[in-house]
Amino acid sequence: MTIYDNKLLPIGVFDSGVGGLTVLKAIREALPKENLIYLGDTARLPYGTKSPASIARYATQATAKLLEHEIKMLVIACNTASAVALDTLRDQVHPIPVLGVIEPGATAAIAARPGGAHLVLATEATVRLGAYSKAILLRDRGARVKEKACELMVSLAEEGWTDGAIAESIVRRYLAEAQADGFALDSVILGCTHFPLLRDTIAGVAGDGVTVVDSAVTTAAVVREVLSSGGGLCDSQQPGHLHLLATDGAARFARVGGQFLGETLTAEDVHLVDL
Amino acid sequence: MTIYDNKLLPIGVFDSGVGGLTVLKAIREALPKENLIYLGDTARLPYGTKSPASIARYATQATAKLLEHEIKMLVIACNTASAVALDTLRDQVHPIPVLGVIEPGATAAIAARPGGAHLVLATEATVRLGAYSKAILLRDRGARVKEKACELMVSLAEEGWTDGAIAESIVRRYLAEAQADGFALDSVILGCTHFPLLRDTIAGVAGDGVTVVDSAVTTAAVVREVLSSGGGLCDSQQPGHLHLLATDGAARFARVGGQFLGETLTAEDVHLVDL
Repeated sequence: MTIYDNKLLPIGVFDSGVGGLTVLKAIREALPKENLIYLGDTARLPYGTKSPASIARYATQATAKLLEHEIKMLVIACNTASAVALDTLRDQVHPIPVLGVIEPGATAAIAARPGGAHLVLATEATVRLGAYSKAILLRDRGARVKEKACELMVSLAEEGWTDGAIAESIVRRYLAEAQADGFALDSVILGCTHFPLLRDTIAGVAGDGVTVVDSAVTTAAVVREVLSSGGGLCDSQQPGHLHLLATDGAARFARVGGQFLGETLTAEDVHLVDL
Repeated sequence: MTIYDNKLLPIGVFDSGVGGLTVLKAIREALPKENLIYLGDTARLPYGTKSPASIARYATQATAKLLEHEIKMLVIACNTASAVALDTLRDQVHPIPVLGVIEPGATAAIAARPGGAHLVLATEATVRLGAYSKAILLRDRGARVKEKACELMVSLAEEGWTDGAIAESIVRRYLAEAQADGFALDSVILGCTHFPLLRDTIAGVAGDGVTVVDSAVTTAAVVREVLSSGGGLCDSQQPGHLHLLATDGAARFARVGGQFLGETLTAEDVHLVDL
């Protein structure tokens, strides 16, 4: 008996809204045969400006809903919830493995630029918690880390204004503010699941010498490692099935989420649930 | 016996977050002797991207909390909640008078530019409900109305980036999109309580011939009319007391809300409540 007795069970992916669909997309690309179930807590988004106690309560409720559907692994595709609630959720779903997005992002940044200076772009709550700083400094004592809240970049991604002069000037302002004290960048970590949509703009503004670390891609790689090391990879010959749940606003979820997932969604693709 | 037996009772002001503090500020300036109690539902903001059913439920719960404190009037200082829940809340608090922000804004726009072309800048939910269009066309059949969702302007106001090149380019883009079909503006209605902070930038981009209608100021004027017509104005000789309630994040409420209210707030000024 192992926890992967039924490899056809889906990987559960949880986020406060649609941003985690960038992580889901990366998992699908890395592991196209896996069945996936995604829950976006759109009724209570954004988590990034909420208190830790509220965020932990919401994450616990969302996880309980995913457990009702039976899952073989849980991915917390929300930086804020990963920073606040990872240990709580590990206790809640034991022995199912739980992965957040912060540790994979931190590990990838260190691998790319050991001893380097890392700038984490994130939401207010993630920055306040300092989870990336802790995760990086625990693994690389020679590193330097700065975290910067960039709430307007969340809106840019949701509005779909991901390139052009407005996106560039906003990214330029945040990077300039972060470097005003002479902090010289080696890497920029996309510490919010919305930011992979702005990746090209951020890379262009940051310049050639700076590594851009996309937590979505690095998290997907770790999902593969964890499943394969435990013998839990799906062995079906069919492409995996995707099941989308949201707590509010199926039409908006479909419209904005489609941009994040990179495919067209309709409101009928999204099932509303109460937590 | 009238509903204003106790004129010292506060006016209750409700919003999804800090935006309604622009309305509170306008009421304080118009009626400095009134006691005021403000409830910002920061645990569940923003309402602008939520479904009507959720918004109505939240507004009813917030109103019940304000009723516990005893109020002589209720102001719904949130365009989205005004659009969705005004009638429901009138039933809930009867015979206490209830005022939303949409009707005062619509009336002021018509008074300034009868038969004119009005552009309403608002959140997605307000636009989807078309409440400004209905309110204006009901009162001025010769008017033309267009509503435009401007979510990035909400973030600009919260970030405090209310003037300068970035704010201007974002406002310019939204106004250009709204006028792409040749719609020639007579008025711009600030249909979100965040937007009075961007008033100067919006007026500058819109140009001299365009009237900018600030729902906060017009709503405060109607509050005065309603109270004075019923004999309910506070007759104290002291400046009114202000009581601030929020459902989450007192520190953030104080920091961002202070900008909206135009005075320095600390977390100790904000009392957390559960709904």
